Amino acid sequence: MGKNILIAHGGGPTAVINCSLQGAVEAARASGKAGRIYAARFGAEGILKGDLIDLTDVPASTIARLRDTPASAIGSCRRKLGEADYPTVLDTLKKFDINCFFYNGGNDSMDTCCKVNELARREGLDLRVIGIPKTMDNDLEVTDHCPGFGSAARYAGLSAAELALDASALPIHVVVLELMGRNAGWVTAAGALAARLTDCETLTYLPEVLVDEDKMLADIEAAYAKGRGLLVTVSEGVRGLDDKPIADTGIVDGFGHTVPGGTAQHISDAIIQRLGLKSRAEKPGLLGRASIPYVSPVDRQEAYAVGEYAVNAALAGESGSMVAIRAERGPEYRSELFLTPLAGVANAEKKFPPEWIVDGNQIADEFFDYALPLMGGGLPQYALLRR
Amino acid sequence: MGKNILIAHGGGPTAVINCSLQGAVEAARASGKAGRIYAARFGAEGILKGDLIDLTDVPASTIARLRDTPASAIGSCRRKLGEADYPTVLDTLKKFDINCFFYNGGNDSMDTCCKVNELARREGLDLRVIGIPKTMDNDLEVTDHCPGFGSAARYAGLSAAELALDASALPIHVVVLELMGRNAGWVTAAGALAARLTDCETLTYLPEVLVDEDKMLADIEAAYAKGRGLLVTVSEGVRGLDDKPIADTGIVDGFGHTVPGGTAQHISDAIIQRLGLKSRAEKPGLLGRASIPYVSPVDRQEAYAVGEYAVNAALAGESGSMVAIRAERGPEYRSELFLTPLAGVANAEKKFPPEWIVDGNQIADEFFDYALPLMGGGLPQYALLRR
Repeated sequence: MGKNILIAHGGGPTAVINCSLQGAVEAARASGKAGRIYAARFGAEGILKGDLIDLTDVPASTIARLRDTPASAIGSCRRKLGEADYPTVLDTLKKFDINCFFYNGGNDSMDTCCKVNELARREGLDLRVIGIPKTMDNDLEVTDHCPGFGSAARYAGLSAAELALDASALPIHVVVLELMGRNAGWVTAAGALAARLTDCETLTYLPEVLVDEDKMLADIEAAYAKGRGLLVTVSEGVRGLDDKPIADTGIVDGFGHTVPGGTAQHISDAIIQRLGLKSRAEKPGLLGRASIPYVSPVDRQEAYAVGEYAVNAALAGESGSMVAIRAERGPEYRSELFLTPLAGVANAEKKFPPEWIVDGNQIADEFFDYALPLMGGGLPQYALLRR
Repeated sequence: MGKNILIAHGGGPTAVINCSLQGAVEAARASGKAGRIYAARFGAEGILKGDLIDLTDVPASTIARLRDTPASAIGSCRRKLGEADYPTVLDTLKKFDINCFFYNGGNDSMDTCCKVNELARREGLDLRVIGIPKTMDNDLEVTDHCPGFGSAARYAGLSAAELALDASALPIHVVVLELMGRNAGWVTAAGALAARLTDCETLTYLPEVLVDEDKMLADIEAAYAKGRGLLVTVSEGVRGLDDKPIADTGIVDGFGHTVPGGTAQHISDAIIQRLGLKSRAEKPGLLGRASIPYVSPVDRQEAYAVGEYAVNAALAGESGSMVAIRAERGPEYRSELFLTPLAGVANAEKKFPPEWIVDGNQIADEFFDYALPLMGGGLPQYALLRR
C-alpha cells in the first residue's frame, strides 16, 4: 500500500509557493509509491480541525495550473502551534494514516516540523517529516536563499526601475516606494536595481540601518536637485534613531499590536511639508508577493524542485530535515538541493549583511552578485533617449 | 528635401506611450519622405526652450527597445500652454524647419494641437499637425478607447485578482486596493476582474458614485463575514456624500491645491477602528501606468499603430486631426484607425457609463464586454483547490 501524504502551507504565501505544491504532488504521482495525497485547508488550522483537501484525484491539468496561480491554492494561516496543539496534530495524522508530512513555510513552520517529527518518533509512528522552505523575506539559515525571494526581489527591482523611469520622465515630484520586509532588507535592497537600469537618482533605506530623518530629508533634497528625478525606496519597517518604526498607523489592533504601515506616506508627507517639494508615495504591498508576471523563472523552477525533492526524500525514508539550496555563482548560475537538519533552521534568522549597505542609502554590487541570478534573467534594456 | 518632424509627449506617461513613439519614428524612416526627426525634451517645456532631441540617427535597435520601455523616453511635462506661449512654440517650429508636428497626449494636448494648427494656418506655415491619443484614463471622446488604457486596465484587473487570491488564501484581513483615476472609474472598474477570476468577495468603488461611508462599512462587514476573504477596490478619487474626496493628505502643495491620496488607507483605518477587523491598504500608484510585464498586447500594438498612422497621415498632407480607433467586438476583436477633427476631442471628456455600476459597488458585464478585448488575451485560469 502506498504512503499517504499531507502537505500544508504556513505563513504568508509567495508567488511561487504553489509551484512547490505542484512539484510535490507531481513527484508523489510519478513515484508510484504514494497513496492518498492530502493538503491541509488553511494550513495549521486545517490540520487542527482535521479539515483536509483530498488532491489524489484532482486532474493533472489543474495541478499544472498551480504554476501560474499566486497565493496559496490550499490556504494558509498565521497560527503558530503551541504545545497544547500537538496532540491534536498527531490525531489528525493518525486519523488520515499520514506517512509523509510536508510543511511548506519559514522559521516557524520549520519549528513545527521539528516538533511533529520528535513527537512522532516518541510515539513510534511511521511518519516522515520534511520541511519545504518558503519565504519572500529570505531569512532562513543554511539554505543559500529561499524559494519566493527571487520573485519578490524581481518584483521589487523591476517595479522600482519602472517607477524610476516614470519619476525621471516627468520629474515633478519625488516618488517614494514602500516595499515589504519588516525586519530584513533583502527585498527592499533589490529595489536598488533601479539605480542600475535607469539614470534616475535613487536612495534606498533598509530596516538594518536606523534612519536620521533630518539627514534623510537633506539627502533627498540634494538628490532631487540634480534634476534627473528621484526615487526613494524604503522598507516598511524602516526605524528612526530611537529604534522605533518611523511610521505606524497609530492604530492598535485586536491583538494589542500597533499596526505598522505608511512608511512611504510618512516620508512623502515630510518631503512636501518640510522641503516644499511635490511628492507621492506608492505601496504595492502584498502585490510584491503575489504578482505572477514578475515571477523569476529561476525561482519558479527552484520552488518546484524543492517540493519534488522533499517528496522523493520522504518516500526514500528521510525525516527530520528541510530541503535547502546550494548555489554556485560562476559565469553561469547553478544550484543543487540537499537536506539539512530541521533543528538548525527552526529558530535561526539569516541577517542582511550590513557591509552591503553603503553610506546608509545605497546598495553594494555584492548584493546584486548574490541576488541577480535568483531574480532571473531577461532584465530589460531600456531606451533612454533623453540622455 | 524631406519633411522635418517633431514629436512631443504631454501629461502622464503610460506603459505604451513609447510604442507610439516607436511607431512614429519607424514610419517616418520607412516613408523615405522624412528629413530630420526631432523629439521635444520634456514635452512642451522642450518646445518652449527649443530643446529638441535629434532622433534621426539613433540606431534602429535603440528605437526598437522603446517597445519595452515604460514612461516617456523623451520626457513629458504637465505644463498647459497659455496664449502667451504660442508665439514661442511657433518660433521653435520655424527654427527647426518643422513640417510635421505630433503631440501625443490627452485632452489638453489635443487642445494644444488644435491651437498650433490654427496659428500655423494663419501664419501660412507649411505645418501639418496631428494628435496621437494617449491616456490611461480613457476619457477621450470619439475614439472607442485610448492607447494606454488597455494596459492600465490589465494591470488593475490582474493585480486585483492576484491580491484577491492572497486575501482569500490567508483571510486574516480585509485588503483594500487603491487604483488611479481621480475623476473617472475606467481603470478601477477593471479591478472587478478579481470577482470573475477568483472566489474572493469583492467590492468596487468608483468616483462616479458618491459613497455613504456607513453603508460602505456595513457592506464590507457583511462581505467579509462570508469567510471567503474580501478585496475592496477603490479609485483614488472616491468621494463621500458631501461630494468631497473621502481622503486627502491634509497637505496643501505649493500651488495651493490640496494633495489627494490615501483613500485606501483611510478606508482600511476605518475597517480596523470601526469594525474591529484587521485590514491593510495597498496602493501601487504610478506602477499602474508603468508596468511592462502587465502590458496588454492589444494595447501595445494599437499604441504603435496610432503613431505610425499619424506620421503617414501627415506625410500624406493631413492636418488638424487626431488619430482615433474604431473597434468591432464580434467573436474576434478588430480595430481600425481613422482621423477625427481635433476640435471635437480637444475639450471633451468621455464619462464612465453610470449603468455599468451595479448597486454602487459591483461592475456590470457590459464593462467587461467593452474592456476585456483591450486588456489583451491570455487571462489566467487559476487553480483553486480549496473549493
